[in-house]
Amino acid sequence: MSNTVSYAAQSPTTPLAHHLISRRSVGPTDVQIAVEFCGVCHTDIHHSRNDWGRANYPMVPGHEIIGKVTGLGSNVSHLKLGQQVAVGCFVNSCRTCSSCEAHMEQYCLNGFTATYNSPSKDPGGFTYGGYSKSIVVNEHFVLKVPDGLDPAGTAPLLCAGITTYSPLMHWSVKPGMTVGVIGLGGLGHMGVKLSHALGAQTIMITTSSGKAADAKRLGADAVLISNDAAAMQAMANKFDFLLNTIPVAHDFNQYMPLLKVDGSMCIVGAIGPNAELNSGPLIFGRRSVAGSLVGGIKETQEMLDFCGRHNITADIELIRMDEINQAYERMIKSDVKYRFVIDMSSLN
Amino acid sequence: MSNTVSYAAQSPTTPLAHHLISRRSVGPTDVQIAVEFCGVCHTDIHHSRNDWGRANYPMVPGHEIIGKVTGLGSNVSHLKLGQQVAVGCFVNSCRTCSSCEAHMEQYCLNGFTATYNSPSKDPGGFTYGGYSKSIVVNEHFVLKVPDGLDPAGTAPLLCAGITTYSPLMHWSVKPGMTVGVIGLGGLGHMGVKLSHALGAQTIMITTSSGKAADAKRLGADAVLISNDAAAMQAMANKFDFLLNTIPVAHDFNQYMPLLKVDGSMCIVGAIGPNAELNSGPLIFGRRSVAGSLVGGIKETQEMLDFCGRHNITADIELIRMDEINQAYERMIKSDVKYRFVIDMSSLN
Repeated sequence: MSNTVSYAAQSPTTPLAHHLISRRSVGPTDVQIAVEFCGVCHTDIHHSRNDWGRANYPMVPGHEIIGKVTGLGSNVSHLKLGQQVAVGCFVNSCRTCSSCEAHMEQYCLNGFTATYNSPSKDPGGFTYGGYSKSIVVNEHFVLKVPDGLDPAGTAPLLCAGITTYSPLMHWSVKPGMTVGVIGLGGLGHMGVKLSHALGAQTIMITTSSGKAADAKRLGADAVLISNDAAAMQAMANKFDFLLNTIPVAHDFNQYMPLLKVDGSMCIVGAIGPNAELNSGPLIFGRRSVAGSLVGGIKETQEMLDFCGRHNITADIELIRMDEINQAYERMIKSDVKYRFVIDMSSLN
Repeated sequence: MSNTVSYAAQSPTTPLAHHLISRRSVGPTDVQIAVEFCGVCHTDIHHSRNDWGRANYPMVPGHEIIGKVTGLGSNVSHLKLGQQVAVGCFVNSCRTCSSCEAHMEQYCLNGFTATYNSPSKDPGGFTYGGYSKSIVVNEHFVLKVPDGLDPAGTAPLLCAGITTYSPLMHWSVKPGMTVGVIGLGGLGHMGVKLSHALGAQTIMITTSSGKAADAKRLGADAVLISNDAAAMQAMANKFDFLLNTIPVAHDFNQYMPLLKVDGSMCIVGAIGPNAELNSGPLIFGRRSVAGSLVGGIKETQEMLDFCGRHNITADIELIRMDEINQAYERMIKSDVKYRFVIDMSSLN
């Protein structure tokens, strides 16, 4: 057990503040990591403010973690001291259920251990995340960062990147297909970059014509304005797959007629109750609405390697640790292009 | 052009009544059929009462048609006079779009022609269905009835049968899989019979414990009572596929946690606005909600042949034509096991 400097929420109403947190000691299969950068995910706001009623304080948010190895358990052989590594949204799972055996730890039937705010044997009884100088993680959940990628821009790949990459892989996105990415935020901007890199015709679907130029800069072949009824009608039955990254409840039914027969729309942003489902467009075209949650460890490493080959990172705004509360306020107003990343050297 | 005796709705409020309807003459690729039996589908009620605002009067409902060939166009060579044949939910499609070329006329991108109440070149300007002594249909849309099947019980296969068979095929239901059939009515009772015949472990999911014995008689291996929270919890993550046949808007979200990772629920009964979609169970398990509409002509013939090999027909209550209005009233109260079929010899 060792102490480390972290930024921790004390309650739903007390902003994040400097804190000393006890970390577990480095066990035989553990890796100790000095955190260099940590992305700021909307989930961090929900958890630290107890929006979902499941907060445990003190809480150290952060699950888009980039750092360097500073300690290795005696049984860890595939990593070395000083190596650049990453940690994503979870740090443990049962390792024995059918999902874990199929490299889908994110769907562990016994429940994965989230990188923060999850029950664990760590001191304090809950996991602590990446808004911190240091983290200790089981080797199975530590990823290698390809050489040459900007480490700050790589941090958001651990959540926003894999959340969009995994469904693009599952629905076999490839050249010749037409993919719509709905919503241009932290997730959506990664969806556009990845779909484009996979060779699909990629169309940004947004309410904001003002986002068109930026969408094309990110890799979109075209932009479809979703409140232009004639434009939407003209694109009916044209899409093989829709990646819906809108982060709040919304009328998703309007997008379904865009899909070809047997097409799927995958929701990755808005978790929970949403609009009334209109089954009509599903029935008259055998279309599907699906969901997807981040990705497994094996697939996350594949995503990082893919991004290394294609030189893909997130578009970020680097902040100091003491700017986090203002960053949260700006995120709530969608005022960020496209992800805040904390420079952890600012925490001392 | 010839006249035939039909039962036609005159307006949303006037019950179905005896009527002389002009039929088109038998063209070179047409088949004239003397209707022996016609199943009564809930859609017939909606259309004849203009529930969907798309009624054209006079209207002759009926799209579960069994009869004998009484006339053949000069170019029709694969059928013969006196042969027992069937007609289902549609009688034409563009034959050239990608859906039609893939034997999925039900998803024709230019719109199929429904068996009744659809614009057509027939006298009157709309198609007339099976509540009639006679019908004339293009040969491509006429199906062969396997020897040995009871013709009255075969009629509902043309809608209730193919509506449940097609999704069971599309989602590759086979031995080793666990399938839930939700709702035990006209569609649900066919879903149970077909899923059982395909070799899947078949579980009837219903609110009514009173339906358990009948569900097992039809082929269900077990019955799950959906308002028993403990029973539902015990079956979480157990189902490969759910066939949802409930005919009205309902809270479908409660069924989603029953599905395994990557499982799908297909809605075939309730068309239109339904409950609010909760994306949680979709995201935490990559589950899907889909829809499906009847089946193509090739698949409908395969379904009839499958039913012939397994001696599967619908459980029906045979009525006279002049009992149709009472039958509608009983159907609205779900008071039928499980499909009304009209003996068309009662129409003179």
